Amino acid sequence: MWISELAATVGLPVPTVKFYLREGLLPTGTPTGVTRADYDEHHVRRLRLIRALTEVAVLRLDGVRAVLDAMDDESLPWHEAIGSAHRRLGAVSGAPSPAASERVEGLVRDRGWTVHEGSVQRAALAHALDALDSLDHPASDELLHTYADAAEAIAAKEVAGVHGEDRVSATEHVVVSTLLLEPVLLNLRRMAQENASAKSVDRRHREPAS
Amino acid sequence: MWISELAATVGLPVPTVKFYLREGLLPTGTPTGVTRADYDEHHVRRLRLIRALTEVAVLRLDGVRAVLDAMDDESLPWHEAIGSAHRRLGAVSGAPSPAASERVEGLVRDRGWTVHEGSVQRAALAHALDALDSLDHPASDELLHTYADAAEAIAAKEVAGVHGEDRVSATEHVVVSTLLLEPVLLNLRRMAQENASAKSVDRRHREPAS
Repeated sequence: MWISELAATVGLPVPTVKFYLREGLLPTGTPTGVTRADYDEHHVRRLRLIRALTEVAVLRLDGVRAVLDAMDDESLPWHEAIGSAHRRLGAVSGAPSPAASERVEGLVRDRGWTVHEGSVQRAALAHALDALDSLDHPASDELLHTYADAAEAIAAKEVAGVHGEDRVSATEHVVVSTLLLEPVLLNLRRMAQENASAKSVDRRHREPAS
Repeated sequence: MWISELAATVGLPVPTVKFYLREGLLPTGTPTGVTRADYDEHHVRRLRLIRALTEVAVLRLDGVRAVLDAMDDESLPWHEAIGSAHRRLGAVSGAPSPAASERVEGLVRDRGWTVHEGSVQRAALAHALDALDSLDHPASDELLHTYADAAEAIAAKEVAGVHGEDRVSATEHVVVSTLLLEPVLLNLRRMAQENASAKSVDRRHREPAS
């Protein structure tokens, strides 16, 4: 298909598609003339992914590039694509406090989780705990375990079905399920908060003003 | 305290603090001379929040501004601060598909949730479902309910304790618990995924190769 059809299929303006081509995020098509090229289903798929990463995961261009580079890096085990993208972005700067790192350590131990020592997530979690402490809103152990319970229940459902696919599909599956299901989870959490908050106000209004 | 002490207390370079002052994100201190001003605990607190929103919630400057403006807008009910910040940012562009909107509608109905009709979260969730569909990774009803179960359990713990505070604290509480606890939840989810994935590989390796 021509670039105009590619753009229409994905629902993006042609100049945007050309921009992604110039930036090297989208591979060039097969040349069929001096100024024309032919695009196929792989381009449609890649372009849909770029669009979703930009609009739904709200990544900046360097973030999209880091994710795509990690996906295309065949030397990388697929389950490390996300961690690698994070490291490429240098998302975590500086070291978290020893206290926060120790807390993360303890949580992983308590849960009996197998999580790589140098995992980006450990540091990112410790950084977040430091920030909450600095704002006098420390996350209690009880809250962390509530989150960990929820995370375990979610992960058990999510991981089933990933194995056994080829590397490209498995990597894309990890990227999509991490970056695009995150907004699903976060929006549901905010809706559940609104609901819990509304129900709580409602309950207090029904109580007799004794 | 002088600006140098303010910067040292929060752990930021003085030029960064001056930048936030110029940008109007941090209110100016009380003038004590032509080039000097006095800063207090309120500045420390606001600066810590700016730092956390930038580094932990990874918001861009316009995102930080939208959140702070919503917090400072006294006409706004505190629980709407986040939704308002999202609207100011114009995070959601275009309308989601009718099918996705209908699915969100059905989910809210099935759960018996009280969620505002025009809620930003409803549209954002529908957008995310559209993106997943377009990439052939649709979120199943089962997965959505797993997330909703987790979101409910989390929200019940989170909302307890918010009411009864003054508006400023309540608003800050909502901002902090939404934007800074999100990275906590997401990093725990990724760690739980790594664990579930590792355990699953481990289990298959232990199975006899019959």
